[in-house]
Amino acid sequence: MLVFVVIFYYVFNAYVSTKSPYQELYIDVPIDHYTFSSTNDTFKLRYLLTEDYYVKGGPTFIYCGNEADITVFFQNTGFLLDIAPQFNALVVFAEHRYYGKSMPFGKNSLTSPEYLKYLSSAQALADFVWLIDILGQKYYSTMITNDTYPFIAFGGSYGGMLAAWLRMKYPHIVLGSIASSAPILQINNVKTCEMFNQIVTNSYTSYNNCSLPIKLSWQAIRNLTKTDAGKKNVTAIFNLCKPLHSQMDINELIDGIEDIYVNLAMLNYPYPTNFISSLPAHPIQTFCNKLQSFDVVKTPLNLIEAIASAIAIFTSDPKNCTNFENGIMNPTEYAWNFQACFELIMPSCSSKDDMFEPTQWDYRNFSNDCFKRYGVRSYKPEGILLEYGGKILKYASNIVFSNGLQDPWSSGGILQNVSETVLAILIPEAAHHYDLRGSNVVDTKYVIDARKFHVNVIKKWLKMN
Amino acid sequence: MLVFVVIFYYVFNAYVSTKSPYQELYIDVPIDHYTFSSTNDTFKLRYLLTEDYYVKGGPTFIYCGNEADITVFFQNTGFLLDIAPQFNALVVFAEHRYYGKSMPFGKNSLTSPEYLKYLSSAQALADFVWLIDILGQKYYSTMITNDTYPFIAFGGSYGGMLAAWLRMKYPHIVLGSIASSAPILQINNVKTCEMFNQIVTNSYTSYNNCSLPIKLSWQAIRNLTKTDAGKKNVTAIFNLCKPLHSQMDINELIDGIEDIYVNLAMLNYPYPTNFISSLPAHPIQTFCNKLQSFDVVKTPLNLIEAIASAIAIFTSDPKNCTNFENGIMNPTEYAWNFQACFELIMPSCSSKDDMFEPTQWDYRNFSNDCFKRYGVRSYKPEGILLEYGGKILKYASNIVFSNGLQDPWSSGGILQNVSETVLAILIPEAAHHYDLRGSNVVDTKYVIDARKFHVNVIKKWLKMN
Repeated sequence: MLVFVVIFYYVFNAYVSTKSPYQELYIDVPIDHYTFSSTNDTFKLRYLLTEDYYVKGGPTFIYCGNEADITVFFQNTGFLLDIAPQFNALVVFAEHRYYGKSMPFGKNSLTSPEYLKYLSSAQALADFVWLIDILGQKYYSTMITNDTYPFIAFGGSYGGMLAAWLRMKYPHIVLGSIASSAPILQINNVKTCEMFNQIVTNSYTSYNNCSLPIKLSWQAIRNLTKTDAGKKNVTAIFNLCKPLHSQMDINELIDGIEDIYVNLAMLNYPYPTNFISSLPAHPIQTFCNKLQSFDVVKTPLNLIEAIASAIAIFTSDPKNCTNFENGIMNPTEYAWNFQACFELIMPSCSSKDDMFEPTQWDYRNFSNDCFKRYGVRSYKPEGILLEYGGKILKYASNIVFSNGLQDPWSSGGILQNVSETVLAILIPEAAHHYDLRGSNVVDTKYVIDARKFHVNVIKKWLKMN
Repeated sequence: MLVFVVIFYYVFNAYVSTKSPYQELYIDVPIDHYTFSSTNDTFKLRYLLTEDYYVKGGPTFIYCGNEADITVFFQNTGFLLDIAPQFNALVVFAEHRYYGKSMPFGKNSLTSPEYLKYLSSAQALADFVWLIDILGQKYYSTMITNDTYPFIAFGGSYGGMLAAWLRMKYPHIVLGSIASSAPILQINNVKTCEMFNQIVTNSYTSYNNCSLPIKLSWQAIRNLTKTDAGKKNVTAIFNLCKPLHSQMDINELIDGIEDIYVNLAMLNYPYPTNFISSLPAHPIQTFCNKLQSFDVVKTPLNLIEAIASAIAIFTSDPKNCTNFENGIMNPTEYAWNFQACFELIMPSCSSKDDMFEPTQWDYRNFSNDCFKRYGVRSYKPEGILLEYGGKILKYASNIVFSNGLQDPWSSGGILQNVSETVLAILIPEAAHHYDLRGSNVVDTKYVIDARKFHVNVIKKWLKMN
């Protein structure tokens, strides 16, 4: 069961350029924006800035950092840099607190819930507001008391939610927001918890129906691992770091493989990327072709060997063993799961009709897992809906929600225009926030059109100021 | 110098009715809405509720409590109860944390800045949001995830700011807000810091130019108190609890008298009230008539005796001595001044043209005074403008800002329509949030019209849902 659905990112290949394309800068922000205490503790929030395209009078494009090192987003959100010259824009990538180098309590930040407690979207938005005010005063020689600075916010995935919420909560701070693949309706929405996995299934089905062997593989794994010899065999087939012993180990293996399918669907770009893993162009197609080069219908063992061989396009390094243990989290996962536990609760389930093992959403189990991990229970699981209004968007303005129709996260996206200024665009054949990536010779017509749409809307917003 | 301008209220005459007109209820709310910790501490927030006029399907009118015991506002905001029957409305008065009985840390709440640190408008708004959600689920058998509950927010003065900000930050939580005498532009606005005292001066000038003797009295007090005998004499004239000794004592006396003039202007209703003090109808007129019954131009001593005699309409009880010491604060003042120091910083000054002693706004001095008192310095004095947008209101909707033209706080009010749904109404001859008071036989045509305006706007908002 995908309890903590993966949308976090980590630095895979660092940017290799002799001349850095940005300045790495820091501002002091309060650890807690919502109290007035005698300590007034602050920490250093990182941001990346490029003045290369800025001409006095131009706007500022600010990327609302999400759950990873901000350099990852700089490298994978080229759209901002691509369009900066025509707008004479300053470009800023703001890091989200508790990720990358923006650690409120230094090395202790991710060591215990007591330090993690200031990790929330509201605190992160307040950080961005401080940064915008500081940059606004510097570049526009005016004060927010007089007028809105010409800032446009951008974000993809959780960063897209933040960009949308920034405009909703602080419409005086940014003129508008491009929120790409922002699943704001996924949060606490149990009703449609199966849609995410349905979309993933559809993506695999569209390649020679390769969701079918995937669907059959789970029972094959469960059957084969009933004996000790079978467990040993499957351990070897998947080159697992930790040999399969218990039922829990087998569940973790299945969860891990499911995660890979989800990631391939999210990252199903038409060219190779180094975003979450080093992936070829059209990774689902590559995976399915590889899978179907085996005779998967022969025996369950053949099927599993074929799966193991095909998913290696994600796990990639044949020299290293593969680790699917849920318990071992890197710092980014630890922080993101904290958010997913207490604030951004995204129900996930799968029906018997899709390629995953059927699961139901069980908040009680979810909350117990979170409590075991962090020793914390949420005050009010629906708190985030009260904070941002859930699907009630009619009072918002100047937001574009874009979604790729192949992106599983479109399941929680805004797929219809809400009003004249809260717009939805659907991008066929597009994966997770494809539109925010830099231009590429093989870009689809659809994504090129989406980017033109963004440019025109931004021009309109800037004229309104 | 009026450093901490008085807009706080305290219970003067408790409501004397055998049958309570409301239920006194409590909900548990988090002490800190913006962190996720293992303690999850909550406290009991008080609210008053009357179902007397509620018919299933009717809306809920919620008063956003400000800096005092919520019963004071229940007693002095009769407008909500007056119009409830025609709307079949539920009526709720929500208490603001750290006032009345809503103490996050019980008896310790107001004893030190460490306990006070959760006293902010943002935390108070989040309390109101929780209360609205709980009442919404109970009375409308639905969830905020599905639709907006039919709540209309009301507030006067700081409560008016909260009502406006509630709609701006949580437009999914209330359909609209009536914000009466809400000086949201007073905050951090140094440019017009003298306007408040100018409006007070004008109110006194309009009664036989009685601002003139007031203007002359300051020098008279300063001259007379140059000697020890003079200090003794003036102490006796004002029946002061603490004899005048130092220059600081004299400054405090002058500050105290100035505060009274401000209060009389704020409370210049056409009928007697027991709101902040027990006052006659048209208290400025009463004061001026009394002042001018003396021959104030004869000698400085005559002038001071006349002033002392006239201000007794406010200090009222001749048996008790009068205390003007700044240092002695009741719990409400202590909490309010904390807010005024760190969040709601309202610059105040007076020019040589008005009836007060000329003063300049000096943030440095102000901040030093705050630090002496609370041991805390503000992170960012302009933080509140970043939070709520200051005068940038064009993206807000469904708010009525009403201001009485005799109310000194109109100096910081929204006096012009901002858009088709953010409206300003000006009420001639009206004092501080007069329109929110219950109807009275001597009500002016102007205030009656203002209330009709409110009723029509509320009908429109309810239809929009």
